[in-house]
Amino acid sequence: MPAAWLQQPVSAPDVSAITAAKARQGVLTKPPGALGRLEELAIELAGLQGRERPQVERVRIVVFAADHGVAEEGVSAFPQAVTVEMIRNFARGGAAISVLARSLGATLEVVDVGAAAEVEPLPGVISCRAGAGSANFCRAPAMSAAQLQRALDAGREAVGRASADGADLFIGGEMGIANTAVATAVACAALQLDPALVAGAGTGLDAAGIGHKAEVVRRALALHRDELEQPLEILRCVGGFEIAALTAAYIAAAQAGIPVLVDGFITTTAALMAVQINPTVRPWLLFSHASAERGHGRLLAALEAHPLLSLGLRLGEGSGAAAALPLLQLACRLHGEMATFTEAGVSDK
Amino acid sequence: MPAAWLQQPVSAPDVSAITAAKARQGVLTKPPGALGRLEELAIELAGLQGRERPQVERVRIVVFAADHGVAEEGVSAFPQAVTVEMIRNFARGGAAISVLARSLGATLEVVDVGAAAEVEPLPGVISCRAGAGSANFCRAPAMSAAQLQRALDAGREAVGRASADGADLFIGGEMGIANTAVATAVACAALQLDPALVAGAGTGLDAAGIGHKAEVVRRALALHRDELEQPLEILRCVGGFEIAALTAAYIAAAQAGIPVLVDGFITTTAALMAVQINPTVRPWLLFSHASAERGHGRLLAALEAHPLLSLGLRLGEGSGAAAALPLLQLACRLHGEMATFTEAGVSDK
Repeated sequence: MPAAWLQQPVSAPDVSAITAAKARQGVLTKPPGALGRLEELAIELAGLQGRERPQVERVRIVVFAADHGVAEEGVSAFPQAVTVEMIRNFARGGAAISVLARSLGATLEVVDVGAAAEVEPLPGVISCRAGAGSANFCRAPAMSAAQLQRALDAGREAVGRASADGADLFIGGEMGIANTAVATAVACAALQLDPALVAGAGTGLDAAGIGHKAEVVRRALALHRDELEQPLEILRCVGGFEIAALTAAYIAAAQAGIPVLVDGFITTTAALMAVQINPTVRPWLLFSHASAERGHGRLLAALEAHPLLSLGLRLGEGSGAAAALPLLQLACRLHGEMATFTEAGVSDK
Repeated sequence: MPAAWLQQPVSAPDVSAITAAKARQGVLTKPPGALGRLEELAIELAGLQGRERPQVERVRIVVFAADHGVAEEGVSAFPQAVTVEMIRNFARGGAAISVLARSLGATLEVVDVGAAAEVEPLPGVISCRAGAGSANFCRAPAMSAAQLQRALDAGREAVGRASADGADLFIGGEMGIANTAVATAVACAALQLDPALVAGAGTGLDAAGIGHKAEVVRRALALHRDELEQPLEILRCVGGFEIAALTAAYIAAAQAGIPVLVDGFITTTAALMAVQINPTVRPWLLFSHASAERGHGRLLAALEAHPLLSLGLRLGEGSGAAAALPLLQLACRLHGEMATFTEAGVSDK
């Protein structure tokens, strides 16, 4: 068994912390329930963090970057060189997630899980390469078992660093030209869906491009059809290094007692893999936003997830999760700092 | 004409700033449109602030508090004493909006436009009273013309203070027992709606309570039916001091070139009044969230408003606008700080 740790059960949310948090919400100076999902978030986080008053102040964002052999099938609007160029942009602070992390006071780490080209050493970029991009899954499995293992380890190790730094929330992001095609393949294999229902515009394909992408995924699913029974086999045959790393990171975060805020389409395929591998992970996954990418809604429905935002985002990098982060932080601040009716001398109903 | 300034036209959004902001969005290191509404927000704010790179860093939140004679008809789940008690809670930092303002680095001001009881001097609370609560509009006009004038002035003066302090965004909030009933009356008068379609749970009425509230509003609308043609007359007959102050504040903010982030149900009735009085105000109003209060959706539709959040909030105080504020701030930061393709050396499509 290559990665037995993945199946290690995760703690269930702490019922006594949930009870205490609910009771506190009931005596804060507001009509009961008037803060809607902000109340629910505080209670949910209380259960995960095991304390009446949760907090989300030390946030770790990790962007996993990798390339994909399937890019040679012409499934992306951008050239593969962009993956490494964007790794540099993350490190230099010019990418969307760089700006968001800086604005939000979150720590940003970039993990190169296997871009096609090797990037020079850069501050904040960790090299943890499973290969120089995955293989073209239309011709062969995307990766070997050893490569899958290395990608899973990359995710687990990133969470180890976050945990050592005392992170109270984990956000995973991704970057990799062609990775919406890869996520489409993973999602279709896992949920037995027709690629035409899942393939979307990605970075900007037109209708013909989307049709081609669906066809490429269909060919890959046909090629590997006898090996797509188990989630780890799906990841190996039609996955990508960053999706495998994210899958492992989500499981490791839950095992370490760190709640996860999931981003968009690609990270949600990793969340689906994580839950299929280890169903006890599910309560630890909070969902940030409904992406504009076509397949996201079906993934969210499969996970019974109700994201916080719906703003037409489709960038990836963890950007949608970062945009939703203030809601979690404000929910905790309200929960922790509002006065009770008694404290404030306000008449209750 | 008691308040001719209300009709003074407002500047239209700056087309050249919008054009420049759109061009900038097109060259930032992301697929075009991938940041969805965060891109639109930055462009919209660029047009309002008249600069390619807008910012939302100095935010003024003003909570207008007042009482309502209609409370004696039993339309609220809480006693009227709560209005003054909550003014104290705002000042002492224990209310939801206090926590939010503190967390977000926004300045909070509370304006007593006419609570039933007079509150002792408190830091951050400004006394600008139009009366000791409005009259019960089931028996008489809610206020006199002179009182309406004073309430409008309270809103205008609050914006004057915000403008003098260099505010780049204005958030209005409200507090006042029974003010969802008042807002229902205003909305129904302005949009010719049946109160049964608009009256909601407010701070926590059950179905019978909501039915009673609708009936109370129906009686008020019948009593004043010959005087509900003009928005200022609607405010005088079935309005409230805080809704009148908010109406004036929104108009004054637009006239001062300060964008407004509108909160929930009650503030949206003020936004509707502001736009009916002066249609040139409309582009200056951004809408933060879809409230759980029943009538809000119809008001938003009437204003063709598409709020950013939908989180089941129904507290008021400006809390929903405060919860959405980080989205505006992050939109501006992304727009202003992301690298362009050229700056980052990233290949374009």
